[in-house]
Amino acid sequence: MTLRIGVIGTGAIGRDHIRRITCNLSGAEIVAVTDVNADAAALAIESYGLSGAKIYPDDLSLIAAPEVDAILVASWGPAHQQSVLAGIAAGKYVFCEKPLATTAAGCREIVEAEIKHGTRLVQVGFMRRYDSGYIQLKEAVESGFIGEPLMIRCAHRNPSSADLYTTDMAVTDTFIHEIDVLHWLVNDDYVSARVAFPKKTRNALPHLRDPQVITLETRGGILITTEIFVNCKYGYDIQCEIIGEEGIVRLPEVAGITYRKDAQLGMNLLMDWKDRFIDSYDRELQDFIDCINQNRTLQGPTSWDGYVAAVTADACVRAQESGQEEAIELDEKPEFYGGIALRSV
Amino acid sequence: MTLRIGVIGTGAIGRDHIRRITCNLSGAEIVAVTDVNADAAALAIESYGLSGAKIYPDDLSLIAAPEVDAILVASWGPAHQQSVLAGIAAGKYVFCEKPLATTAAGCREIVEAEIKHGTRLVQVGFMRRYDSGYIQLKEAVESGFIGEPLMIRCAHRNPSSADLYTTDMAVTDTFIHEIDVLHWLVNDDYVSARVAFPKKTRNALPHLRDPQVITLETRGGILITTEIFVNCKYGYDIQCEIIGEEGIVRLPEVAGITYRKDAQLGMNLLMDWKDRFIDSYDRELQDFIDCINQNRTLQGPTSWDGYVAAVTADACVRAQESGQEEAIELDEKPEFYGGIALRSV
Amino acid sequence: MTLRIGVIGTGAIGRDHIRRITCNLSGAEIVAVTDVNADAAALAIESYGLSGAKIYPDDLSLIAAPEVDAILVASWGPAHQQSVLAGIAAGKYVFCEKPLATTAAGCREIVEAEIKHGTRLVQVGFMRRYDSGYIQLKEAVESGFIGEPLMIRCAHRNPSSADLYTTDMAVTDTFIHEIDVLHWLVNDDYVSARVAFPKKTRNALPHLRDPQVITLETRGGILITTEIFVNCKYGYDIQCEIIGEEGIVRLPEVAGITYRKDAQLGMNLLMDWKDRFIDSYDRELQDFIDCINQNRTLQGPTSWDGYVAAVTADACVRAQESGQEEAIELDEKPEFYGGIALRSV
Amino acid sequence: MTLRIGVIGTGAIGRDHIRRITCNLSGAEIVAVTDVNADAAALAIESYGLSGAKIYPDDLSLIAAPEVDAILVASWGPAHQQSVLAGIAAGKYVFCEKPLATTAAGCREIVEAEIKHGTRLVQVGFMRRYDSGYIQLKEAVESGFIGEPLMIRCAHRNPSSADLYTTDMAVTDTFIHEIDVLHWLVNDDYVSARVAFPKKTRNALPHLRDPQVITLETRGGILITTEIFVNCKYGYDIQCEIIGEEGIVRLPEVAGITYRKDAQLGMNLLMDWKDRFIDSYDRELQDFIDCINQNRTLQGPTSWDGYVAAVTADACVRAQESGQEEAIELDEKPEFYGGIALRSV
Repeated sequence: MTLRIGVIGTGAIGRDHIRRITCNLSGAEIVAVTDVNADAAALAIESYGLSGAKIYPDDLSLIAAPEVDAILVASWGPAHQQSVLAGIAAGKYVFCEKPLATTAAGCREIVEAEIKHGTRLVQVGFMRRYDSGYIQLKEAVESGFIGEPLMIRCAHRNPSSADLYTTDMAVTDTFIHEIDVLHWLVNDDYVSARVAFPKKTRNALPHLRDPQVITLETRGGILITTEIFVNCKYGYDIQCEIIGEEGIVRLPEVAGITYRKDAQLGMNLLMDWKDRFIDSYDRELQDFIDCINQNRTLQGPTSWDGYVAAVTADACVRAQESGQEEAIELDEKPEFYGGIALRSV
Repeated sequence: MTLRIGVIGTGAIGRDHIRRITCNLSGAEIVAVTDVNADAAALAIESYGLSGAKIYPDDLSLIAAPEVDAILVASWGPAHQQSVLAGIAAGKYVFCEKPLATTAAGCREIVEAEIKHGTRLVQVGFMRRYDSGYIQLKEAVESGFIGEPLMIRCAHRNPSSADLYTTDMAVTDTFIHEIDVLHWLVNDDYVSARVAFPKKTRNALPHLRDPQVITLETRGGILITTEIFVNCKYGYDIQCEIIGEEGIVRLPEVAGITYRKDAQLGMNLLMDWKDRFIDSYDRELQDFIDCINQNRTLQGPTSWDGYVAAVTADACVRAQESGQEEAIELDEKPEFYGGIALRSV
Repeated sequence: MTLRIGVIGTGAIGRDHIRRITCNLSGAEIVAVTDVNADAAALAIESYGLSGAKIYPDDLSLIAAPEVDAILVASWGPAHQQSVLAGIAAGKYVFCEKPLATTAAGCREIVEAEIKHGTRLVQVGFMRRYDSGYIQLKEAVESGFIGEPLMIRCAHRNPSSADLYTTDMAVTDTFIHEIDVLHWLVNDDYVSARVAFPKKTRNALPHLRDPQVITLETRGGILITTEIFVNCKYGYDIQCEIIGEEGIVRLPEVAGITYRKDAQLGMNLLMDWKDRFIDSYDRELQDFIDCINQNRTLQGPTSWDGYVAAVTADACVRAQESGQEEAIELDEKPEFYGGIALRSV
Repeated sequence: MTLRIGVIGTGAIGRDHIRRITCNLSGAEIVAVTDVNADAAALAIESYGLSGAKIYPDDLSLIAAPEVDAILVASWGPAHQQSVLAGIAAGKYVFCEKPLATTAAGCREIVEAEIKHGTRLVQVGFMRRYDSGYIQLKEAVESGFIGEPLMIRCAHRNPSSADLYTTDMAVTDTFIHEIDVLHWLVNDDYVSARVAFPKKTRNALPHLRDPQVITLETRGGILITTEIFVNCKYGYDIQCEIIGEEGIVRLPEVAGITYRKDAQLGMNLLMDWKDRFIDSYDRELQDFIDCINQNRTLQGPTSWDGYVAAVTADACVRAQESGQEEAIELDEKPEFYGGIALRSV
């Protein structure tokens, strides 16, 4: 069986997914595309030789098309909510890039619609859950290898940030990935957020406070500290270390050859974020395709996870501004999404 | 375009390739299978739901089938040569698992047939050239980062060997992968082989001499030492280090999470060889498919590389028996395969 | 020249220093000892064959003895202040184990006495400044290799704590070493402290809050986060990482042989804190001896550093109780101790 | 007790030992020096303020001096034998820098003299046995942690060699340290040597064959391969890895801080050999002093070890010239030196 996918938004991310589905993955094909810029849509079709794909004028018409089994939402953030809701209304599968919606209320609306529909249709594009390192960390937690997790220490560093990157984007564009993957890792809910600003690097533009240190606490008492440093200069570097009662586990370095030269023992670090989770992008989408083709329930990040991310990000942005601890108040998790499975308090 | 592949041999490796092509890769489908055991062929079709694939009674009828664009040879070694030659005669693309043929003369015959055909049709399944670590090593050599290579130190270790594994198989089944990847790494030809036998491990069966240390020398004078140790107990471990005039590069460890527990700082090693090059198996076959679908010349290991492997392995087996240095005498490399590109002598 | 040392306190630490001076170091000898337990003093003399050493009834008589050039204070904490002040009054050199005094006021009194004396007489036993790793970190900061330091991440972990160990001792006995070495590393003063309590490990006794996360901020804005975890079970582990504008430096693991065995690549971690800084204990004391014997100014931790440690520890203990940020208010650093050399604010 | 040492030879190594004994170590003092260059001897005394040390005109008069308890032989190699024999004849302890004598016969003569004397008097300055890493390797072998050793892989690399350094010096000056430490590590005797010459680096002078690969085999069948590369450019690097039946152990890298900067994760390597075993030089001499002062039998490298080194080095130099395997024929080990304690054949 071949899953027929319609792509909404043919910017950089949309085109990358088109390439992936067409050239790398198995079991799916692109049958429809749309973009606010019609030329961009046409160019995407041409670039990847998608002779069988049709261009639609907008998301709603694409979603309505009978040949479309599933949609991939890669438009700009504010447009996501409408597409996702329309997809659910049409009973079609939806792979939605982050954010699921730009507000917590918007995410909640999607959650309700999906519950009302009665089966899972939506997967949010948080790819880290498909990274081999994070999967190993989760296994180490769930097997009891490190005992109960007590603390998590993370770092999310980029060599440099774009001029338009603002202080709140450190939460909504950058930390959002930690928000998603960390509560999944320890199967717990966040209850509070706090943000501290160390001495600012001179390598950041005047309007940007960089680095930041964000502290989350979970219902079970786990203290999570993440350094966000988007002008660290030296590389793109993702670190995560879980400190448990019996031991510690840590993400590996990205495997690279080691060298001995010029009085140094070293290895190269990545400079480009696109290289870091390149396999995870493939795996999240292959999993989405396989689950549908094999009539299995979607197992990737859910609408509820999108909602958790939105509520948590809101609290972090408030904490940036207030300098205080801000509460993270989530609704009760619906049975539909697996119910509550919290760590012991 | 979808490449239509016929699979010859549906044992473990053949089935794994069928799964790969069907579930992981893009641009190809299985349209035909054959096996000396007809039930095995039927089972393979059923296991992967290949409703469109036809079972043929033997390799020749499969190769003759008009719907077959390319064949994948995964039968037992002694049968390879006939299938490959028939494939070339039919002008079909051939992906052949090692060995290309069981004798150097057989390989040479394939080389002649392919040259006579006039374009490259054959890729041999030496997957290490598609491993990210080896690719980085090759870049380090070719960019001049370590200067001229002078020595290579390798280890090829398995936790344990099967009862039927014999001393010569350390060359023909195990070291054969180093034989292929090392001359590619340094773009040089082997001229001699020598084998030393250290103290034998008590963990090997009486008939097996294990470990062994194989030394190859290249035309350019590079000294290559490889430890083959197939009952090392602790893991499946592939090491390769190139010592150059200006520095050294080394394969990375397989990335795994690190732990701190019970007074140890550690990480898991692989126990199963199948996990080590899992990505490379995908990449070698995707590359084969892409080159054909995009009308590009095959760029994987050639028939000539299969011939080099056979000649070199023969010399190593002779060296096991003689205890002496044995010459490796290769014919001159045909222009068809890129001609001679040796390191300076 | 041989420095004649009188030791005040022959408990575990005192005896260890006696052994060190007698068996490992050069240029000094033990000529006098005293202990509140006279038998312990006699035993120490006997254990190390110090036939020439005399037992004194108390610290003051030992300090007054004409054959004593320098005293080593290794009694229990509350007794330190009197011995140090008496030593200064007698114009004798003083090597004082931490704490210099149990109160900031007591430390301040020592500082005043030393300034009044006019030359440096006192070195406090903060040995980490003599550790090769910390020295390399300091060089990396001072050479500009990582640019301006922005953040420091530390961990101080013990396998288990004694029954009598209390929550505040995580500051006064454990974190005190980070307090000393970190302001020295970045040449800056602390201005505030905050303490957070993650989920408690079940491996700690009921009365002890463990782990703790202590955050210090410096005048220059550097944010320092230290995890104190004294029942981590897995080992004695000291980590320190400085994140600067241009790069990051980190303490090395303690060098140990690596092994490959049982599907693990690993190395042993220390379990006993006494092994971690064993060389530093030798070096701090040899440096004290050499400076005196060579008529050079003492260069180890000063009375002022002892005062800084006391004021900072007080604030951290307050922060443990208040749950709030607590100010660290230091007097202006006297010219006598090198004056103010702060990082740019 | 203070051991009174007379130093024969005040060149670089002799002066370094004088500094060590005077400034670093405990329990010994320099009471006499001699050098073929009387000014050098006087300068050494002056440099280290050895007001109590007397200058003697030659080794024999120094050895005869009643105030001399032990001699330290640091003259040039050809003079060692006479001094050591005179020391033994006078019943004095002898710490002799390598070589014990320049010929195997000379070493044998010393062995006979010491046996005749009846107690151990001589320690040879092979310091690696005092290196923490090698000691851990030996423990791993002796505890059975890696099972029976089967192979050893070593590398001994220097950034560059002096103009006067010749091909045979790769054995007599460089590999000599591996010769000593490796048979001690596995408690076995060498039986043969072979030398291979890989492609030569252009960074070596025309007269020097560099790198070299020396293979030793032991009576028990252990195969030891050592790369000697004295113009490797990148650093001073000592590697040793023991491959056993149950696992592998390897020397650690020299501990240094790690950095993340400029897209690199790295650490500094040593460039100067003097830094690599700096602690071992202290320990070997402190052990010599302590054994004598405490009336314990010397436990460092013996005269017999000096003899083993000489016989083995001779075979390696022959192997450099012959290109063949050369036998290493040792006399039977006298009971005096612990008798034969070979690995099972």
